[in-house]
Amino acid sequence: MTIPVERVSRPGRVAEPGEGIGIDELRLAGRNHAMPLEMLRAELTPPGLHYVLTHYDVPDVDAATWRLDLGGEVEHPISLSMADLTAMPSRTVRVTLECAGNGRAGLSPRPVSQPWLTGAVGTAEWTGVPLRDLLADAAPTGSAVDVVFTGHDHGFERGVEQDYARGLSLAEADADDVLIAFAMNGAPLPAQHGFPARLVVPGWYGMAHVKWLRSITVIDHPFDGYQNAAYRLRQQPDDEGVPVTRIEPRALLMPPGDPDFMSRDRVLRPGPVRLRGRAWSGWGGVTRVEVSTDGGATWRDAALGPDEHRWAWREFTLDWEAGPGEHLLRARAHDATGRVQPVEPAWNRGGFTNTADDPVRVVVLDG
Amino acid sequence: MTIPVERVSRPGRVAEPGEGIGIDELRLAGRNHAMPLEMLRAELTPPGLHYVLTHYDVPDVDAATWRLDLGGEVEHPISLSMADLTAMPSRTVRVTLECAGNGRAGLSPRPVSQPWLTGAVGTAEWTGVPLRDLLADAAPTGSAVDVVFTGHDHGFERGVEQDYARGLSLAEADADDVLIAFAMNGAPLPAQHGFPARLVVPGWYGMAHVKWLRSITVIDHPFDGYQNAAYRLRQQPDDEGVPVTRIEPRALLMPPGDPDFMSRDRVLRPGPVRLRGRAWSGWGGVTRVEVSTDGGATWRDAALGPDEHRWAWREFTLDWEAGPGEHLLRARAHDATGRVQPVEPAWNRGGFTNTADDPVRVVVLDG
Repeated sequence: MTIPVERVSRPGRVAEPGEGIGIDELRLAGRNHAMPLEMLRAELTPPGLHYVLTHYDVPDVDAATWRLDLGGEVEHPISLSMADLTAMPSRTVRVTLECAGNGRAGLSPRPVSQPWLTGAVGTAEWTGVPLRDLLADAAPTGSAVDVVFTGHDHGFERGVEQDYARGLSLAEADADDVLIAFAMNGAPLPAQHGFPARLVVPGWYGMAHVKWLRSITVIDHPFDGYQNAAYRLRQQPDDEGVPVTRIEPRALLMPPGDPDFMSRDRVLRPGPVRLRGRAWSGWGGVTRVEVSTDGGATWRDAALGPDEHRWAWREFTLDWEAGPGEHLLRARAHDATGRVQPVEPAWNRGGFTNTADDPVRVVVLDG
Repeated sequence: MTIPVERVSRPGRVAEPGEGIGIDELRLAGRNHAMPLEMLRAELTPPGLHYVLTHYDVPDVDAATWRLDLGGEVEHPISLSMADLTAMPSRTVRVTLECAGNGRAGLSPRPVSQPWLTGAVGTAEWTGVPLRDLLADAAPTGSAVDVVFTGHDHGFERGVEQDYARGLSLAEADADDVLIAFAMNGAPLPAQHGFPARLVVPGWYGMAHVKWLRSITVIDHPFDGYQNAAYRLRQQPDDEGVPVTRIEPRALLMPPGDPDFMSRDRVLRPGPVRLRGRAWSGWGGVTRVEVSTDGGATWRDAALGPDEHRWAWREFTLDWEAGPGEHLLRARAHDATGRVQPVEPAWNRGGFTNTADDPVRVVVLDG
């Protein structure tokens, strides 16, 4: 009896209209986790509260024997131990990281994959060695085109067995602030965030930030591996599609008041409330955030906090007089490149980059 | 217009037959998270991988101003700062913690709440001050009956506004190894695990281990607060029910081989495999684990690892010759009190203590 891989690993699909979340999506939702939205109160998200998406299993990597090999189309191949890596000059960059699939569960029909609502985000300070320094040491040859980053995580996906691997162009890899990171918020990487070292590509969606990094290979042609092919915006499975790259602008409100356990709706008493939230874009700084307290009928400009960290979210606040009744709170961001967070979702088959907001339902009691 | 609390916080319900996971359950599944099952490889679960269930929001507690007040029916009320607490003699206990709702999503019909499959578990070393020592200092009066533990987390649940609070009898509270814990695996508690201090009641389901603890009140009558009323095994909403207390025996297999991203099914090549897992019970030590590689048709006894930590899980292993084809792996635990993990779920309205296993589907390729 021949057992083909397709027996266990099937093509992607889109849910039927009205089809509830299935057991496969629930398995992913149970292992991975969003940032609880109340953590928008903190500029830096602690691990355990920062979102996590793991494609396969969290691998068990031994830092004592770990090595990072940089080879391929380079004059001087490099192989580094953890001691070598951490002895090099390093820098710390504050980065907002978001899953490309954040918002997927809000699409209709729903692409069947990790069913994120809107919390697949977090901001941390990543410390590591600039990739640019390693590339300068390795000296890519004149035929270098793409740089491929491969992790220790191994599995099957839509019928393809693979080590998780992603490619960037040489120019994208050689950009400012791209790091081989070995610390998160000042501590060694937690296992689920790529221990002992990972790639950090500020401004890009999470799929680019390869965890449990083990090799960097410079190649003389565009990388056509599974993950680069998968993360594309398509209407039909056979479309060529458009690559998912930088993070689209999004504003997220910290839900005010107290939650109901089951619905996560919020309860307030009447009176003044300072609404708070954070907004970000991987394309350019956040220049404007609009907030609606009436479900989108009218919008007001929020006050913006300092804009000191190019790759991190920016705080916004709006004072609101909460009167008795039910209210739907919404927010949307604009960035310096002129991109505006859309009010309606733009559907694609992979369920990527859906920045349509998920309004916060608030019930203000009489007193 | 009068806005009643019922507008936001509704009674519990059971899903219709065939009803998929809804948006409310998905909101909970996104914020809370299970332990990824590959972490069964580790005796101690790091935070971020250890399961977390938060009823309301993760509160923002300042350790510098935090106090723990122990009062009520005592001769000598106590109020402690963090400095006071951490200066007292402390001990470290290794404890397997499991959510009482673990397995809920496997019930049919499904009680609508946090939709756990089987991973709502983890094991950590908790360091803290024995509650017995604090109670001895406070000296409960002769009229003491129950001890009520109240956290800083506040919200609404099934129509009731509340601070999270749970009661234990004086005898249960005064037991060996009950701790006011301020460290997890040797580090300060992470926010989501109750920073700066929480209750740990070894052997009990998670609802008893009150996080973000702020007061301990000895009362002269049985505590009838919401959470003690909610965590009961009932067939109908009006049943008196049976309290959920200690953890029922469960064995959990570490899925072998490599995962498929979407289904979490496992892929192996033919040959010998050492199956591994961990089993636990809050009633007594694990004395036997049976493993089936044919979906439950036949069972073999697994080898048991050392049993050195009374309140922590025990490792088990079974050598298996994996032949090509599809296999369903299962495991079940027995404990020293004679309790046996049932093969079929015992339904109750709250979806508690469902220890029926979730078989691991394995596809062994031809080579």
